[in-house]
Amino acid sequence: MKLGRVVGTVWATRKVDSLTGLKLLIVRDLDLDHSFKSSFVVAADSVGAGVSEVVLYAGGSSARQTQVTTDRPVDAVIMAIVDRLDVSVSDGDGVESA
Amino acid sequence: MKLGRVVGTVWATRKVDSLTGLKLLIVRDLDLDHSFKSSFVVAADSVGAGVSEVVLYAGGSSARQTQVTTDRPVDAVIMAIVDRLDVSVSDGDGVESA
Amino acid sequence: MKLGRVVGTVWATRKVDSLTGLKLLIVRDLDLDHSFKSSFVVAADSVGAGVSEVVLYAGGSSARQTQVTTDRPVDAVIMAIVDRLDVSVSDGDGVESA
Amino acid sequence: MKLGRVVGTVWATRKVDSLTGLKLLIVRDLDLDHSFKSSFVVAADSVGAGVSEVVLYAGGSSARQTQVTTDRPVDAVIMAIVDRLDVSVSDGDGVESA
Amino acid sequence: MKLGRVVGTVWATRKVDSLTGLKLLIVRDLDLDHSFKSSFVVAADSVGAGVSEVVLYAGGSSARQTQVTTDRPVDAVIMAIVDRLDVSVSDGDGVESA
Repeated sequence: MKLGRVVGTVWATRKVDSLTGLKLLIVRDLDLDHSFKSSFVVAADSVGAGVSEVVLYAGGSSARQTQVTTDRPVDAVIMAIVDRLDVSVSDGDGVESA
Repeated sequence: MKLGRVVGTVWATRKVDSLTGLKLLIVRDLDLDHSFKSSFVVAADSVGAGVSEVVLYAGGSSARQTQVTTDRPVDAVIMAIVDRLDVSVSDGDGVESA
Repeated sequence: MKLGRVVGTVWATRKVDSLTGLKLLIVRDLDLDHSFKSSFVVAADSVGAGVSEVVLYAGGSSARQTQVTTDRPVDAVIMAIVDRLDVSVSDGDGVESA
Repeated sequence: MKLGRVVGTVWATRKVDSLTGLKLLIVRDLDLDHSFKSSFVVAADSVGAGVSEVVLYAGGSSARQTQVTTDRPVDAVIMAIVDRLDVSVSDGDGVESA
Repeated sequence: MKLGRVVGTVWATRKVDSLTGLKLLIVRDLDLDHSFKSSFVVAADSVGAGVSEVVLYAGGSSARQTQVTTDRPVDAVIMAIVDRLDVSVSDGDGVESA
């Protein structure tokens, strides 16, 4: 999954029927220090996420594994709203190389 | 999903039989400020999109979740024509890091 | 789908049994002005494409949606030979932003 | 699969029901010399991986092929903890080109 | 599919049960002139590939379409050992643009 922040909404009235009622949010990718990356995605919302919230989204066929996205032409879904990140970065190396 | 603008059409007479009748459009990716990115994709049209329209397209197996693309060798489908984007970008950060 | 030009062939005698008889072509990605990109892919051929032809290929699970690739470990398939591209690029913007 | 090191945890209470109980770890991608790349992913844990461990993770639909991720909106799963890498890089070339 | 050279092996004793017995090889991506790219992947071996051999690997769900990878959390599989590449690059352009 990727980490992002909701920055907006896409409005579309002409669309595939199966998308009716689905909220389509614009999510900008976040780095681990919470700064914006340049990339973004449009993701279906399955958890009631709102603008400015930090979220996790899943891509590919896994994006269809929620009640609101099953069998729909959706390749990204917000499946969690992030409460907190615990990040402890270490440059140590516990793996032996031959 | 990704945001793009239809910039053209691909014509192909020699193709897999299951693609007969499918409109194949060239879609250039758009940034949030509506400027063109350098990347593009060829996507099947499922909503009657025309040249110069801003669209959403879905990729991967999700591209086969429309009536016109089911069971076809298609990895990108236009599934919505965009009316409007509401974008409110904020650099604030509501997530606590440990 | 992506646009590419066939630039060669891969020969492999030691391979998964299900790949027997499948033609594996080297396809370099093309830009909209028909210049080569640096990227390439090896794709199964389902339409009798030959070296120097411009083709469309589909990736991911959609690459298995042809008669010659069904249930095979193939993640890219040439599914159309391109006759012509009609490209009309415009920098105008018909989408209103809030 | 990709090689990464677990550098943290994501906490999320508002999420799709099917994610309940799943541990979501932050994994930074590693290069072959064990240095960090700039990219990272949030992956479900299926093997009891802990912070600082070097792991393998699988993406896409393959991420749902473990007991804890089946039918869940998860596009990355840690499926192995790495004991050791044996890397022998050679710039030689045993393939003949026409 | 992508072209790569096997440069090593990953050893992992703590892993998902379904991976038992599977050989996990480190494959560095190759360019068409057989030089190494900077990218690499860890791929399951389905054809008895050895270190220094040039191989083709398939990614995504297609990586599960071999006997040794079916239903396993594996997103890359080596499915052929390359004997020879025939590459004939041309900058000509046989496609008419409108």
